[in-house]
Amino acid sequence: MNPDVASPTRLISEKQFYTYGHPPDKVILESGAQLGPVTIAYETWGTLSEERDNVILVAHAFSGDSHAAGFYPDDPEDAKPGWWDSLIGPGKGLDTEHYFVICANILGGCMGTTGPASINPETNQPYGLDFPMMTIGDIVDTQKALLDHLQIDTLHAVIGGSVGGMQVLEWCVRYPHMVKAAIPVATTMRHSALAIAFNEVARQAIMADPQWKKGAYYDSTPPDLGLAVARMVGHVTYLSDEAMRRKFGRKLQNKDEFSFGFDVDFQVESYLRYQGNKFVKRFDANSLLYITKASDYFDMIDRSAEKKSLRDLDHAYTRFLVISYTSDWLYPTYQAKEIVQTLKRTGQNVSFCEIEADCGHDAFLIPDQRLSDIVGGFLKRAERSDGHEI
Amino acid sequence: MNPDVASPTRLISEKQFYTYGHPPDKVILESGAQLGPVTIAYETWGTLSEERDNVILVAHAFSGDSHAAGFYPDDPEDAKPGWWDSLIGPGKGLDTEHYFVICANILGGCMGTTGPASINPETNQPYGLDFPMMTIGDIVDTQKALLDHLQIDTLHAVIGGSVGGMQVLEWCVRYPHMVKAAIPVATTMRHSALAIAFNEVARQAIMADPQWKKGAYYDSTPPDLGLAVARMVGHVTYLSDEAMRRKFGRKLQNKDEFSFGFDVDFQVESYLRYQGNKFVKRFDANSLLYITKASDYFDMIDRSAEKKSLRDLDHAYTRFLVISYTSDWLYPTYQAKEIVQTLKRTGQNVSFCEIEADCGHDAFLIPDQRLSDIVGGFLKRAERSDGHEI
Repeated sequence: MNPDVASPTRLISEKQFYTYGHPPDKVILESGAQLGPVTIAYETWGTLSEERDNVILVAHAFSGDSHAAGFYPDDPEDAKPGWWDSLIGPGKGLDTEHYFVICANILGGCMGTTGPASINPETNQPYGLDFPMMTIGDIVDTQKALLDHLQIDTLHAVIGGSVGGMQVLEWCVRYPHMVKAAIPVATTMRHSALAIAFNEVARQAIMADPQWKKGAYYDSTPPDLGLAVARMVGHVTYLSDEAMRRKFGRKLQNKDEFSFGFDVDFQVESYLRYQGNKFVKRFDANSLLYITKASDYFDMIDRSAEKKSLRDLDHAYTRFLVISYTSDWLYPTYQAKEIVQTLKRTGQNVSFCEIEADCGHDAFLIPDQRLSDIVGGFLKRAERSDGHEI
Repeated sequence: MNPDVASPTRLISEKQFYTYGHPPDKVILESGAQLGPVTIAYETWGTLSEERDNVILVAHAFSGDSHAAGFYPDDPEDAKPGWWDSLIGPGKGLDTEHYFVICANILGGCMGTTGPASINPETNQPYGLDFPMMTIGDIVDTQKALLDHLQIDTLHAVIGGSVGGMQVLEWCVRYPHMVKAAIPVATTMRHSALAIAFNEVARQAIMADPQWKKGAYYDSTPPDLGLAVARMVGHVTYLSDEAMRRKFGRKLQNKDEFSFGFDVDFQVESYLRYQGNKFVKRFDANSLLYITKASDYFDMIDRSAEKKSLRDLDHAYTRFLVISYTSDWLYPTYQAKEIVQTLKRTGQNVSFCEIEADCGHDAFLIPDQRLSDIVGGFLKRAERSDGHEI
């Protein structure tokens, strides 16, 4: 190894926690239910400017977490970096030399933020199904509470893919004057029947597992088999016909002939079983139930009278960049275009980019210089039009 | 009611059975395993001509049965007719005034033909997983045995959709000189990784159910919960994004507001649960395992050296009509075109028709005059080119 070539700096983050909503000042959720205290796990990268105006909020997808980039201090050398490391870092699309990037685990999750596996202070037992149903709006409100705590009152940008993209849209409607730029990626303004259907199958797979016990499994064996099947369902929807043909085709696993039984024959079977089994080690089945339901409920158009919809944006403060992927059949491009058209009708400043990619919905998570370039360029233009460079 | 208007004749069929392969003359399957005796449940419509040359074999799809048309003699007035009643009957595409139509339940099924729920004569217990894995070729061979029994040595046509279409292709390769016309509908010459993936998720859902007991559940509660989830997975793949938006959209079931819980909120959830629960009353979980595996194994191209493939057809005796549906994403039109191209390269006489339909793979089962007209017209042309009208 050439000692003159310095190894690139490892971007380091640490999980931090903020707790609020202590009784009797519990958080009131969209359903009317009360919840508290609420702990938010979050990580940051880069440096907050003195004006506190260089903040980019990253919203994670359904099974993501706050670890969007870099490494933890005690990570081994061969550790994988955070899930959007290709986008976040010095010189990358979300340039941590310029921006202060924040990512928080979502409410209802299981990666440090309060969720169904957390202890219910009223019973000293895990919530299970006593956890109140939260919405994407409730998730956004916890992020807002975190920003209040950090004394941040403006977001240079909010960006997220899939369920993270729903949070981006919800931010723009709930706190329109806080968001200068919004980048919803590979997302929808409301779930199609198809998306609801796949989520419902995943939920049914978990609830059919007798280990699920109506959510009260925290002192026993968790519903791993049901959760694995649920993950397999989800995983297929994240891929595309073309990507799967390219990656697996009809290739057999470790043998030349069919087993003529129910062991793994095809590589794609092995891959799915592996993904299912890997997932149960890191994710809580009840969190899947709550987060999928919250994403099914999400609807930026048909809302109760007292709630603003995407059609009610009456200003053009936020610049939007809507991004979709050609082979995403979970949130296809036509749904991204519905977002664009809805925003344009209210006179918003909207750019739209469809990225050619054959790997389905997963494309937004796969390292891709194009996404980094598009996002970086958009943020620079947003700065310039804003009259100042950070 | 006007007594002069005669009510249309109810097409009546009765389930019949043929049993062969009694020990020691068991049937040898493609895997090399032996099975016997084998019972085939079948139904017929129309009249066999004296020349025994007006036979049309209908091959059913994965969860179908021999009851392709009409009613059973003791059906109540409000009974539903057989599954392809829109295509089979007097004056319909498969005109029972002209043709003698046969449909048999497939090997491995659970509607009268020998399958994993049948009694294993060696143990006097249901086979369960001792049932040998059968292939689409084995299914076709049982149909051939039935035709031998009925002293039928030529098929005017063989037609089937989905897994039934696979049987059509297999017929043309196994018994090329018996088939005058072949109509594979909404099918593929080999499963894509995506199709295998969905089948594998369905299988895993069943095998994750503790009631499954490695297939030995026939004296206990069957794995209904797992089978219902498996059916829900399958059902989503039979529909299309567009059809689901039209049929369900985001419509709520029986209420105006979200439940903020895990009860049914959306109509599509209710529909899927209903389909899952309905299916477990009529279908055997082990049959699903065997039939999905047989369809995953099916491959008309890459075959062992001793087996002919679709590329080996060296004559042009059979006329082909390949039919696909625009919104079928399980077996998309590009896969139908692969069949057409493969057949054309060997000099076959092939017609191709893509039917515009927004209801996904299920389209071939939905009553549609166009399918009836196309099939009827094709059969008439096949007759004329054959030099005689039946």
